Amino acid sequence: MKQVTAVKIGDMKAMNPKKRGRVEVTDVPVKAVGDDEIKIKVAYCSICESDLQAVDGTFGWEAPFGLGHELSGLIVEVGKTAAKHGWKVGDRVGGNSRNYCGKCYYCINGREQYCQNAIEEPGMAEYIVWNERQPVKIPKDVSLKNACLIEPVSIAVRVLDKTYIKIGQNVVVSGAEPIGLLCLQLINLYGAANLTMLESNPLRHALARKYGARHILNPEKDDVELWADKITDRRGFDVCIEASGVPSSAETILNISAKCAHLVYAAQYPRDYYLPLNIHDQLHMKELDITGTFVSPYAFTRTAQIIGRLDLDDMTDVVFPIDQAAEAFEAHLSGKHPKVLIHCNPDLE
Amino acid sequence: MKQVTAVKIGDMKAMNPKKRGRVEVTDVPVKAVGDDEIKIKVAYCSICESDLQAVDGTFGWEAPFGLGHELSGLIVEVGKTAAKHGWKVGDRVGGNSRNYCGKCYYCINGREQYCQNAIEEPGMAEYIVWNERQPVKIPKDVSLKNACLIEPVSIAVRVLDKTYIKIGQNVVVSGAEPIGLLCLQLINLYGAANLTMLESNPLRHALARKYGARHILNPEKDDVELWADKITDRRGFDVCIEASGVPSSAETILNISAKCAHLVYAAQYPRDYYLPLNIHDQLHMKELDITGTFVSPYAFTRTAQIIGRLDLDDMTDVVFPIDQAAEAFEAHLSGKHPKVLIHCNPDLE
Amino acid sequence: MKQVTAVKIGDMKAMNPKKRGRVEVTDVPVKAVGDDEIKIKVAYCSICESDLQAVDGTFGWEAPFGLGHELSGLIVEVGKTAAKHGWKVGDRVGGNSRNYCGKCYYCINGREQYCQNAIEEPGMAEYIVWNERQPVKIPKDVSLKNACLIEPVSIAVRVLDKTYIKIGQNVVVSGAEPIGLLCLQLINLYGAANLTMLESNPLRHALARKYGARHILNPEKDDVELWADKITDRRGFDVCIEASGVPSSAETILNISAKCAHLVYAAQYPRDYYLPLNIHDQLHMKELDITGTFVSPYAFTRTAQIIGRLDLDDMTDVVFPIDQAAEAFEAHLSGKHPKVLIHCNPDLE
Amino acid sequence: MKQVTAVKIGDMKAMNPKKRGRVEVTDVPVKAVGDDEIKIKVAYCSICESDLQAVDGTFGWEAPFGLGHELSGLIVEVGKTAAKHGWKVGDRVGGNSRNYCGKCYYCINGREQYCQNAIEEPGMAEYIVWNERQPVKIPKDVSLKNACLIEPVSIAVRVLDKTYIKIGQNVVVSGAEPIGLLCLQLINLYGAANLTMLESNPLRHALARKYGARHILNPEKDDVELWADKITDRRGFDVCIEASGVPSSAETILNISAKCAHLVYAAQYPRDYYLPLNIHDQLHMKELDITGTFVSPYAFTRTAQIIGRLDLDDMTDVVFPIDQAAEAFEAHLSGKHPKVLIHCNPDLE
Repeated sequence: MKQVTAVKIGDMKAMNPKKRGRVEVTDVPVKAVGDDEIKIKVAYCSICESDLQAVDGTFGWEAPFGLGHELSGLIVEVGKTAAKHGWKVGDRVGGNSRNYCGKCYYCINGREQYCQNAIEEPGMAEYIVWNERQPVKIPKDVSLKNACLIEPVSIAVRVLDKTYIKIGQNVVVSGAEPIGLLCLQLINLYGAANLTMLESNPLRHALARKYGARHILNPEKDDVELWADKITDRRGFDVCIEASGVPSSAETILNISAKCAHLVYAAQYPRDYYLPLNIHDQLHMKELDITGTFVSPYAFTRTAQIIGRLDLDDMTDVVFPIDQAAEAFEAHLSGKHPKVLIHCNPDLE
Repeated sequence: MKQVTAVKIGDMKAMNPKKRGRVEVTDVPVKAVGDDEIKIKVAYCSICESDLQAVDGTFGWEAPFGLGHELSGLIVEVGKTAAKHGWKVGDRVGGNSRNYCGKCYYCINGREQYCQNAIEEPGMAEYIVWNERQPVKIPKDVSLKNACLIEPVSIAVRVLDKTYIKIGQNVVVSGAEPIGLLCLQLINLYGAANLTMLESNPLRHALARKYGARHILNPEKDDVELWADKITDRRGFDVCIEASGVPSSAETILNISAKCAHLVYAAQYPRDYYLPLNIHDQLHMKELDITGTFVSPYAFTRTAQIIGRLDLDDMTDVVFPIDQAAEAFEAHLSGKHPKVLIHCNPDLE
Repeated sequence: MKQVTAVKIGDMKAMNPKKRGRVEVTDVPVKAVGDDEIKIKVAYCSICESDLQAVDGTFGWEAPFGLGHELSGLIVEVGKTAAKHGWKVGDRVGGNSRNYCGKCYYCINGREQYCQNAIEEPGMAEYIVWNERQPVKIPKDVSLKNACLIEPVSIAVRVLDKTYIKIGQNVVVSGAEPIGLLCLQLINLYGAANLTMLESNPLRHALARKYGARHILNPEKDDVELWADKITDRRGFDVCIEASGVPSSAETILNISAKCAHLVYAAQYPRDYYLPLNIHDQLHMKELDITGTFVSPYAFTRTAQIIGRLDLDDMTDVVFPIDQAAEAFEAHLSGKHPKVLIHCNPDLE
Repeated sequence: MKQVTAVKIGDMKAMNPKKRGRVEVTDVPVKAVGDDEIKIKVAYCSICESDLQAVDGTFGWEAPFGLGHELSGLIVEVGKTAAKHGWKVGDRVGGNSRNYCGKCYYCINGREQYCQNAIEEPGMAEYIVWNERQPVKIPKDVSLKNACLIEPVSIAVRVLDKTYIKIGQNVVVSGAEPIGLLCLQLINLYGAANLTMLESNPLRHALARKYGARHILNPEKDDVELWADKITDRRGFDVCIEASGVPSSAETILNISAKCAHLVYAAQYPRDYYLPLNIHDQLHMKELDITGTFVSPYAFTRTAQIIGRLDLDDMTDVVFPIDQAAEAFEAHLSGKHPKVLIHCNPDLE
């Protein structure tokens, strides 16, 4: 079958073609389906920034390896046990790209995200075999195209779980990248008041407005602290979601947060970046509660239940057939589109 | 000043006029404004079912006494300390009808709702004097008419606080009375999936639909348990809000709740009613979490911040001038309107 | 190998021998050890009230079947994967008698206790084969004899998880049966103030005192509500654990609970028993939070970490060799001992 | 009356006497008792590090001003309202030195610690007048001498509130200063397993051991990370309390914390100190939850209820009469004693 494969490690933006990473469609065998597994004919798989990180060597993997973890599709084969538990050929599914063992210290203690034996198969391919614990059914009113975002939506669901928001609290989301935009939409449905977006790219402002932002501030132009004071009546934001991964924004949300605010760092930051955290000012005088998230434990059922309420069409309108995967990655690298999708089986809509 | 006053204790629906309770507009003095107080010229005050309970003697009060606790208005006088803390003549305010002492066991332990020295002045009057801790400013985009619902909205905010909902959970609200309708709107903005309303009065169904219900079940006609199974894929509702006060509904939500569901009993039930709770089935085999609410502690700032997102026009379109307060109560008793408002100072819009 | 087996269904206390249930030691084959499994040579297995329920037919099982789920022992064989994950022959272990699938709706949503495919092997036998997710290592300072209580201690750990106690709150535990006694010891180490035990059997009072009860009330003799008022300065208990399973006690704790108290029903109640719960008095006027527990999800690591701080010798001093299993059940039925242990391999100490 | 007064601003450790701060006993009038107030004849008042900060100018106060907020004593006069609410002459009390207004934004939102109108009277004096919301009764089995620690114990209670510990989790406390020692004792009663103390001063180790530490590490000599791995089976501590205020320790607890651990910074840190927090390593790969505390909101009732379970004699055995207040401060500055007490009315025991 066809698979989008990292064939050479390297920064895909590198000017020097010798140092540049490369992605190609290669032919690989389909895995056999075990008793507790299902085979999915993949409809769409969207590109995630972490696919780029895999290619540029951040995770230390050796090429060649398959890419992709944000997918939707149809079940085409069902193992014996999986069938007994209700999975059927023809079910439309998305889900959790990570298969957790259910047996290690973290799994038996309710922290599956840190499973010591997690396995992930590549989803940018014609077919993928998953354990029966991974798929969730796509609601009837959600298209296969939008459903490939179940995985990124689950990331946002997890971020929201960790905000511990109470209805009516003031919320700011920093960064209108895909996770930030999904967080924005979701928190708009999850109790936010005076919902504010920080984003320096004006091209993203219209989408932010459409997705629920009442106020949009440009950290490169606006006096963010002044406006935050105005929006929140000098009290600051009770919930702050940092989804840009930009160090200066990581610091900004400290200064616009309310006393006792919850801050969630939801992006990837440079590995050598240290946030300078003034304990006296932020933890003592304000009692901030600061945390982060890693993937999306215990979130997929709820994601499938809420995804139908989201407006995802603007995030899934750039699509390339699998044979043009390289072009899809170029489109992603252009930074023009919130998301770029690969149509892994063009006969599936 | 004019005040809507209970002048005779008794059921206002009683057929026998001798036993019937009576409400009249009487003339009473305005209270003086203390240092830490403000005086409000009341715009609107809506009728609450508990005003009827006050008249029929449920609370054991002796007539005559003033009524009303759901109000909006303009500040017309400000005490010295209140002024120092920022309150100004002309501020548009609604708020907490209950003034808590801040000093008793419950106040110093974060449970102000059970304050041992709470005081409540009547709000169905031309003027009311409040402690500076009671008012909240009405947001610019909210009319004085809608703002008299700040108090009932705060009740719903408190109900939601106690649901401990996680985004994407399945939710049912039972009862389309005012608190149920407000809970419905708010929980639709607070993470609900597959939002379902139980209501036997078909006249309320359109409003429920408008306020966010995806499914509406009539407990007198529909097989509620069957439909709940269908809506929730046989898992039950993760959050159940009972806002009808009807004993049979109190029992119904036990049977349509999911394992580990949170149930909040948010209505007034007959004082001699005992819910038959099967501990084995509901607490052991399902680990339900069952609670209730009493008024709305620590909820008013957030209420003011979220009220602008609610659609309240259908709940505030029946208005009587204060001189027709008796007619207003009759309109309320007709059961035709979700809310009936009294315009306490017809010059205020 | 030898196994303690229910060979006839029936109440073991029945006077009529024809209707009486019967337990015998039978010879059964040892299971083979799979890749992700380990074989334990069982040291001790204690009798639980639910073993009696299995025999009397409460669970609807057909005889013959093996009994026992509270066990400790030594690992004597390790499957390939289990070995890779660190399990070794000679490890001293207790643990979770229930093997969860890790794949069903409840497992992937953090509610493993309701796993739809849970499996339990009998532990009152010379050997038992467990999945590698089930065992936890016994701390060095805990004997094999005391370690068979890891499972019942985990039940109490779970009860405590659901109390949401804050340090310094007033606590009452109702019922000095094994789970009540373990809850008492644990809550004494988990923030309790004015720790009070309700128990009508005076023979259990000394143990309750030893395990941390500051006050002991006899519901058959003492005016419990009067004393509760005195102990808590008329505020009631903030945390109430009902571990007796006695209907009258189920009702008593409602009346001695504080406003906003957490009540956990932690025992088995008759399946046809309905607690009469006055919603107005208990949920509205007091905002009680009422829940129950089912087995002990996500609790075993913490159980192993805390068990060394408990005083268990008085609960493990009645021991019968496996060949005298019938006598062990008789001793249990006498009601004289908090726990009766079966020594499954008398060469293991 | 006599009052311990800061008469000159400056570092009390300064070598140059001209720059040195100074504390003296001065004569000041006793305040009159308002309706909702009580007057306390102070028995003991202990010295807190923040008294030194007041003297050295950290808070920007202008001399002269009275010191002290950790006190116990007898009520000698009761205002009318306070009497109505149950306070009596002769009541033994300690309590909250801060009087909150109950009316500002923070008070009405359940965050009284940030009250915008908090008032604090000096407690190192023969008498102090408090609002009736401040005192709590001292339990019968607690001496006046130990009861002056109610305030610092409340600080530790608040720290524990923010650990969100689950019973059986691994806990480390860093710093055996008074708050660290009290946290150690309390967390030992609040679910801790493998309780570990980090302290570089070997003179404090015996007390740490006595107060419940199972393991004591010296960060100046021991390889703390290696030992933490050993104690926690390479998983790290689930709860980390930093009570030393030392920057290097602030960083150490990041590296010995478990995935998903709760870290509470409970000390005063230099105002210009920034903790270098690696978001990728600590918030993303570990999902740490980091917070701090400010004073002790909603904690005094529970403090009074739990204080009788603490062993405080070693922390209250260094006592100076009020006339030797200067010597008391010198003793405190010597660093030899966990606490130094001033006996404000030597006739009260």
